[in-house]
Amino acid sequence: MSVFEIEVAKRFKDLDPYDHVSNAVVIDYIMEARVRAYRLLEQVDRAIIGQVVARQEINYRRPILFGLEPLLVRTWISHVGRSSFTMDFEVWDEGHLAADAKTVMVCFDIGSRQSREIPKEFRHVLEANLHAPS
Amino acid sequence: MSVFEIEVAKRFKDLDPYDHVSNAVVIDYIMEARVRAYRLLEQVDRAIIGQVVARQEINYRRPILFGLEPLLVRTWISHVGRSSFTMDFEVWDEGHLAADAKTVMVCFDIGSRQSREIPKEFRHVLEANLHAPS
Amino acid sequence: MSVFEIEVAKRFKDLDPYDHVSNAVVIDYIMEARVRAYRLLEQVDRAIIGQVVARQEINYRRPILFGLEPLLVRTWISHVGRSSFTMDFEVWDEGHLAADAKTVMVCFDIGSRQSREIPKEFRHVLEANLHAPS
Amino acid sequence: MSVFEIEVAKRFKDLDPYDHVSNAVVIDYIMEARVRAYRLLEQVDRAIIGQVVARQEINYRRPILFGLEPLLVRTWISHVGRSSFTMDFEVWDEGHLAADAKTVMVCFDIGSRQSREIPKEFRHVLEANLHAPS
Repeated sequence: MSVFEIEVAKRFKDLDPYDHVSNAVVIDYIMEARVRAYRLLEQVDRAIIGQVVARQEINYRRPILFGLEPLLVRTWISHVGRSSFTMDFEVWDEGHLAADAKTVMVCFDIGSRQSREIPKEFRHVLEANLHAPS
Repeated sequence: MSVFEIEVAKRFKDLDPYDHVSNAVVIDYIMEARVRAYRLLEQVDRAIIGQVVARQEINYRRPILFGLEPLLVRTWISHVGRSSFTMDFEVWDEGHLAADAKTVMVCFDIGSRQSREIPKEFRHVLEANLHAPS
Repeated sequence: MSVFEIEVAKRFKDLDPYDHVSNAVVIDYIMEARVRAYRLLEQVDRAIIGQVVARQEINYRRPILFGLEPLLVRTWISHVGRSSFTMDFEVWDEGHLAADAKTVMVCFDIGSRQSREIPKEFRHVLEANLHAPS
Repeated sequence: MSVFEIEVAKRFKDLDPYDHVSNAVVIDYIMEARVRAYRLLEQVDRAIIGQVVARQEINYRRPILFGLEPLLVRTWISHVGRSSFTMDFEVWDEGHLAADAKTVMVCFDIGSRQSREIPKEFRHVLEANLHAPS
């Protein structure tokens, strides 16, 4: 399956003075979905996957209120390049699309602090899960 | 039932440079358990329950690592006074007690910004759920 | 002056397990610079400026380490539309560009929860501070 | 000088739905003051000072509102034991005491994950800065 559906719990602390989830917290939800998708892909060895976030884009569609039910974050790998790849995200709140986002990751050599090609075994995982959005 | 068992999800963002949940985040877990316990008690009208945190105590027992499984926070009302009451917390992580805590809440009149007696209907709820720790 | 230079203090808590500022915290720095620029513009009445963040873009250029010196965030208004406007940001860390970003804001009527034209007096402020990036 | 006076900047993101700084954020201010006091003491080598927070106590005295001016956090070492020591904190907001706190730190051997005696050179620094609150 190449689209992951990840539950991410809200926290009351995510709220801002407007009683909405702060726009700056939506990026936390996306990060959480990404980390959990990696776990599902069994990609947890930081030495192997060593990578950094190079770019984020987020579109806010609807305010998110607090509630006990978790958000549903749909995420998929939308592009695999030479040293970078892209993950797409949709944040669903009570059946409504609240935000969508795109994260560009770059593989990175911790020693030299330079970008590097996506390691071969990690590339296999990414390509096997590549998903063209419908 | 007078002890609430609340699941609180970890987030990767809770980690600090030691790869442990930051001690400053444990208070977020406690706040989340408190808010969710209130929901279970159907006490969500801020005008009625209007209250502020007056004091927190936290003992850190074990480092908390990241994981997909939620924490289990046990919480109960341990003391009810005239204008204040106390909630106790235990944060359980994978079967181990990771922290315990105590929060003193004071009822508060939003208009006058003064403490006030616990409103009668909220006192009934608190007293009905008062729990002497064993 | 149409480019604001805002100091934003780092916090140790901003660090992630890689000992860098978490990419998800850079958006907090941008929000902080935006709020402080509004204060400098004397635009603090939420009823008047009522607006929401519609879109964020962030490019991460360099990792940010902890330090006592504040970041310098340069921000300017780069576009003014009918109901939306765009602010650009550069996050400078110890003389190096660490990130750049773009935030699209939409004016919003709190009552009807609909977008609306930028209020005239706020538009004057925005246009007077519009800055074409060199 | 044995009382440190540390400026800690507020962030708009620290606010909760009551338009006050969240009680859970006050612990971030305390952590920040502690880290910055260590820098002033030139105690930054984590291998040497290796320690964990064992206990926190916070009393909330007044709500903290957002503002451009930083908080002033006064902190001092109030007790030095065999393997643990205590730091006291006062959080001052615009000339008013907003919170006071106490943090108990335990020295910790990262290898064995056991508490250990305070290392001799670090003990000298602590004792030289021990301060009996007036």
